[in-house]
Amino acid sequence: MGNADYVHSTTTNVVESAHRVAVPPPQPFLKSLTSSLKETFFPDDPLRQFKNKPPSRKLVLGLQYFMPILEWGPRYSLEFLKADLIAGITIASLAIPQGISYAKLANLPPILGLYSSFVPPLVYAVMGSSRDLAVGTVAVASLLTASMLGDEVNAKENPTLYLHLAFTATFFAGAFQASLGILRLGFIVDFLSHATIVGFMAGAATVVCLQQLKGILGLEHFTHGTDLVSVTRSVFTQTHKWRWESAVLGCCFLFFLLLARFFNKRRPKLFWISALAPLTLVILGSLLVYLTHAEKHGIHVQVWVGPRNFLVRIGFGEAGHMYEPTVLIDRRIEKGLNPLSITDLAFGSQYLPTTIKIGIITGVIALAEGIAVGRSFAMYKNYQIDGNKEMIAFGMMNIVGSFTSCYLTTGPFSRSAVNFNAGCKTAVSNIVMAMAVMITLLFLTPLFHYTPLVVLSSIIIVAMLGLIDYEAAIHLWHVDKFDFTVCMSAYIGVVFGSVEISLVIAVVLSVVRVLLFVTRPRILALGNIPNSMIFRSVDQYPNANLVPGILILEINAPIYFANSSYLRERISRWIDEEEDKLKSSGETSLQYVILDMGAVGNIDTSGISMLEELKNSTERKGLKLVLANPGGEVMKKLNKSKIIESIGQEWIYITVGEAVRACNFMLRTFKPKPMTVNGSETWSDNV
Amino acid sequence: MGNADYVHSTTTNVVESAHRVAVPPPQPFLKSLTSSLKETFFPDDPLRQFKNKPPSRKLVLGLQYFMPILEWGPRYSLEFLKADLIAGITIASLAIPQGISYAKLANLPPILGLYSSFVPPLVYAVMGSSRDLAVGTVAVASLLTASMLGDEVNAKENPTLYLHLAFTATFFAGAFQASLGILRLGFIVDFLSHATIVGFMAGAATVVCLQQLKGILGLEHFTHGTDLVSVTRSVFTQTHKWRWESAVLGCCFLFFLLLARFFNKRRPKLFWISALAPLTLVILGSLLVYLTHAEKHGIHVQVWVGPRNFLVRIGFGEAGHMYEPTVLIDRRIEKGLNPLSITDLAFGSQYLPTTIKIGIITGVIALAEGIAVGRSFAMYKNYQIDGNKEMIAFGMMNIVGSFTSCYLTTGPFSRSAVNFNAGCKTAVSNIVMAMAVMITLLFLTPLFHYTPLVVLSSIIIVAMLGLIDYEAAIHLWHVDKFDFTVCMSAYIGVVFGSVEISLVIAVVLSVVRVLLFVTRPRILALGNIPNSMIFRSVDQYPNANLVPGILILEINAPIYFANSSYLRERISRWIDEEEDKLKSSGETSLQYVILDMGAVGNIDTSGISMLEELKNSTERKGLKLVLANPGGEVMKKLNKSKIIESIGQEWIYITVGEAVRACNFMLRTFKPKPMTVNGSETWSDNV
Repeated sequence: MGNADYVHSTTTNVVESAHRVAVPPPQPFLKSLTSSLKETFFPDDPLRQFKNKPPSRKLVLGLQYFMPILEWGPRYSLEFLKADLIAGITIASLAIPQGISYAKLANLPPILGLYSSFVPPLVYAVMGSSRDLAVGTVAVASLLTASMLGDEVNAKENPTLYLHLAFTATFFAGAFQASLGILRLGFIVDFLSHATIVGFMAGAATVVCLQQLKGILGLEHFTHGTDLVSVTRSVFTQTHKWRWESAVLGCCFLFFLLLARFFNKRRPKLFWISALAPLTLVILGSLLVYLTHAEKHGIHVQVWVGPRNFLVRIGFGEAGHMYEPTVLIDRRIEKGLNPLSITDLAFGSQYLPTTIKIGIITGVIALAEGIAVGRSFAMYKNYQIDGNKEMIAFGMMNIVGSFTSCYLTTGPFSRSAVNFNAGCKTAVSNIVMAMAVMITLLFLTPLFHYTPLVVLSSIIIVAMLGLIDYEAAIHLWHVDKFDFTVCMSAYIGVVFGSVEISLVIAVVLSVVRVLLFVTRPRILALGNIPNSMIFRSVDQYPNANLVPGILILEINAPIYFANSSYLRERISRWIDEEEDKLKSSGETSLQYVILDMGAVGNIDTSGISMLEELKNSTERKGLKLVLANPGGEVMKKLNKSKIIESIGQEWIYITVGEAVRACNFMLRTFKPKPMTVNGSETWSDNV
Repeated sequence: MGNADYVHSTTTNVVESAHRVAVPPPQPFLKSLTSSLKETFFPDDPLRQFKNKPPSRKLVLGLQYFMPILEWGPRYSLEFLKADLIAGITIASLAIPQGISYAKLANLPPILGLYSSFVPPLVYAVMGSSRDLAVGTVAVASLLTASMLGDEVNAKENPTLYLHLAFTATFFAGAFQASLGILRLGFIVDFLSHATIVGFMAGAATVVCLQQLKGILGLEHFTHGTDLVSVTRSVFTQTHKWRWESAVLGCCFLFFLLLARFFNKRRPKLFWISALAPLTLVILGSLLVYLTHAEKHGIHVQVWVGPRNFLVRIGFGEAGHMYEPTVLIDRRIEKGLNPLSITDLAFGSQYLPTTIKIGIITGVIALAEGIAVGRSFAMYKNYQIDGNKEMIAFGMMNIVGSFTSCYLTTGPFSRSAVNFNAGCKTAVSNIVMAMAVMITLLFLTPLFHYTPLVVLSSIIIVAMLGLIDYEAAIHLWHVDKFDFTVCMSAYIGVVFGSVEISLVIAVVLSVVRVLLFVTRPRILALGNIPNSMIFRSVDQYPNANLVPGILILEINAPIYFANSSYLRERISRWIDEEEDKLKSSGETSLQYVILDMGAVGNIDTSGISMLEELKNSTERKGLKLVLANPGGEVMKKLNKSKIIESIGQEWIYITVGEAVRACNFMLRTFKPKPMTVNGSETWSDNV
């Protein structure tokens, strides 16, 4: 690589051959502020497509922006419809039993699960930009509603209030989701890292499964707590009340569902087996109960409430007691489909802060799941999803939902995966599902009257098992111990504490990690890779050689207030140790300290003071501080603070290699004592 | 630089000449955990000096570690003593009037200011490692005590309780400081950035100055609020009570002090003028009152309490009313110097949470000032200060102080600067100051009986003016707009809100800045610097040329959960835009995307998924993803997650230059159509 050339340049003129480090051209303050705000809040540049278009076209584009159906609708073909019909009917058959089960999990009337699979999918089909997302309720949000709302209001003693608060929480969840999207704050959801979600979901699934012991064992009374300790206590303090009939039936159902899931995993083409299994079970179980009157032999049945006797029947607790029946008779129940619930939103209630809190927490979690699912499938089919736009769609879906007797919905992974496997093409599959649910609501609900609880419990358990992703946890352990810690904290937090504790711990840990990265940046000593001008960390490249008389350090983070005193002291100590080492070994004494700033993304005023102090303290020690490869932002700040003049423009180099060359040249020229053979000479021959 | 060589190597064999990117040698989990914990909590390696030493030596070193006086004491010389004597007497003459003034600011008996200049300096002299720090009370912490404690207890109506709570808060401040040091959490103080402190100090100084209008104007009643609005209202609603005699005297004193300060600034050698001015004023003012009986003509005098009638006199408010005098007569007051106050600590009181809160806030602020001052002078004289050790010293000093009738002390900047200018050599100057204060306490306090309040107000105002560092604020504006915003938020927060609000806003903004750096990392397009193999940002180097057919992007932050979805979408958009641009201009189509990972300090599992998805999506677009210069940590994770195999080890290069060379070689070999003259040819000739 041109040794002759290199030696020539070092022995003639170093400074001229070096490339100057540029200060980026100055920008007016307002322009740079606008551009950094734009990069922060509009990284996707949503207005890009509106540029240079006539006003009428802009209007059309604007409508299409908020209602993607206007964009793909006109191009919709019969072929697409065929695919979407199959997918829609498949997910409807999954949506009906799951909806009932999850509503039960939330301590809400089961019919709400069906309502929630009717209106929200229609809203999403109009506003959503994912082609594969299937809308519906999810177990975790249902569990959260039950546990957080249950702390305030007893669902059995005061079902109307409980129901109204659930609608209100759904409204706030929607409002929060939509405003995150409108205010372009979607990145807040990113702070729920993948590791957090893996741990959190597994924990929630564990807790939900444990709670299903109530249904499987046919217990009547059960704890409201969601943590492992209270559930275990609740199960084992009433062993005398376990019903073997229920348990046997439950195990059979579980076996059947797991078998279907196993086939699905082995042959993804057979997705419909797994998708139809729950509905088959519900029908089989209901028939069984109807024919054998099993409800009199220890098999508890779902207290089913059809649309026509909605609020009347709510009054009956599961044990058959009647609460405030007079209050509950309501005119609205005469309607066929989702009754309006807009007047039920309890904004004036004393529980308003609780509902807001529940809304925000469930809203964020539902959003995280929905966005992640949407993004995964979009990545797979190679189309783009706009996170902020999706948030507005989810938000609107839940706001409208809260007006029409629905509770929190999102894009659950399981249902969307079935949708995807069934070959859906567009959001029309959601419309088809909504239609199927509508027909069920209008005509078929009485059929479900005898659905045994144990069936619903088995469906929930099997759905939950899919959420316990132990393989992902093992992967985290192998790749990144910190992520594994976050994941386990989230898991343990849910299982032994509560959902809020778990989330707070996991998010705080994740943020601490980011802060620690900046607070304790890595400082690496660089050495020369043999036969090159490349300088790299000697930890990473054991064959890299340190350069005698020159200490080269790389700083691997922005230099901010949070790390400037650490860096000052750590670099000083590094220099001291290097000098001690050289002194004791009798080698060339230290002359130059080169800081590789290539990985320093930014610097603030504390960082600049640090550099200045470092420069002064190295000078007092008789050393020269040299900077290599400072980036644009850093050079801008150094220039403004006049520190460039104090260090000297000629001591700032574009690469470490050029800095070393210059230092070495000075070492030879002004210190003509012979170099140690083992160090410098070897090195300089190899450049 | 050997063009012939380069062309030769490209046309023969690229891969062989390239240097392989190394995966750092694997380390056992426990070892890497230990080393990263050590780097986080023990970056200064405090046990370094204990290595390979016999046990007896270790004991001595250990004692010396906690009591640096044992280290420098034996080497103390007569010459040092001479210097320290002068410095000590100088700072004592400043400490006495300042102590009285600040204690008044804290609504505490003025004698506490003297007590606090006696015991704590002795403790610090033994345990502290700074040679220039002068210990004493500070205005900001005094103000904070007055405003936060004043919200709970009225100092006039219940002086004993107020006093006891102040001692308790001091105890908690000390305990908190010491535990930060012991738990090696000193870096928490770094989160009070330089910008925050500039704004906060200026704001506090403004507020303190405004409050001195009470003394200057001779007002009797004044607001307890510290914000601008309530102070202004308090001043201007009682214009009829302003005393012109007091105001005239105040202006004269102010003029005299400012003049002394001016001389000091012009000629730093004349530091003693400025240091002696306050004491001179106190003596002059007291004489004036004594001779003219000015206290009967509108000049309020300090209600002075000597040690012998300490608690008896506290009972008298400033207006001369007597509160609960029977309770206040106490046997302990018979002692000469600081009476013990250990039994006064009110741990069982209902105000415990308040005192803990006050302790933590004042403790952190005092620590931030003390550490910053100590570090600055140590940097100047080229010796090391161990932050965590200093915290333990400060903590012990305040704990012992709270047992001996002192309130919160730290190393105030003004007093330490005088100490430094007076030529102090070691902490013995603190001992000298303590002795001088002791003599004052024992014999001279009656002399101060007639000190007019207006003198103390002028002393405070002039001391505070030094804290309003508008030049620093202007510097912040020029260099870093974000730091300026933080500074102004802290200032406005103190002046219009409260100290807590101000600190919370400033710290949150600072943390948001760090998080934003990671959440929205900069992505830079790199181009080739003419006549080199160097690739740098085209924004910074306008002469850098983009390479046709190859998009080179540099990521300037760790790839974490917080930015992985942003990076995925932003890089995808960048590729799309580049392809559109190339298509419309009819140039070579895009073939390679090189990611320069040199500035990526770390990666987590979310980041790895991002890279994997990016690789898949670029592949679907017919592009090849190439990595350049991944660091040690990143390579470790990539290796563990098997993504290296999926990208291909041969597509990971040690420099961008080598990656481009390889890509270009492939472009020529497998796409033999002629290159556009303006782009590639020019580039390849210049390498």
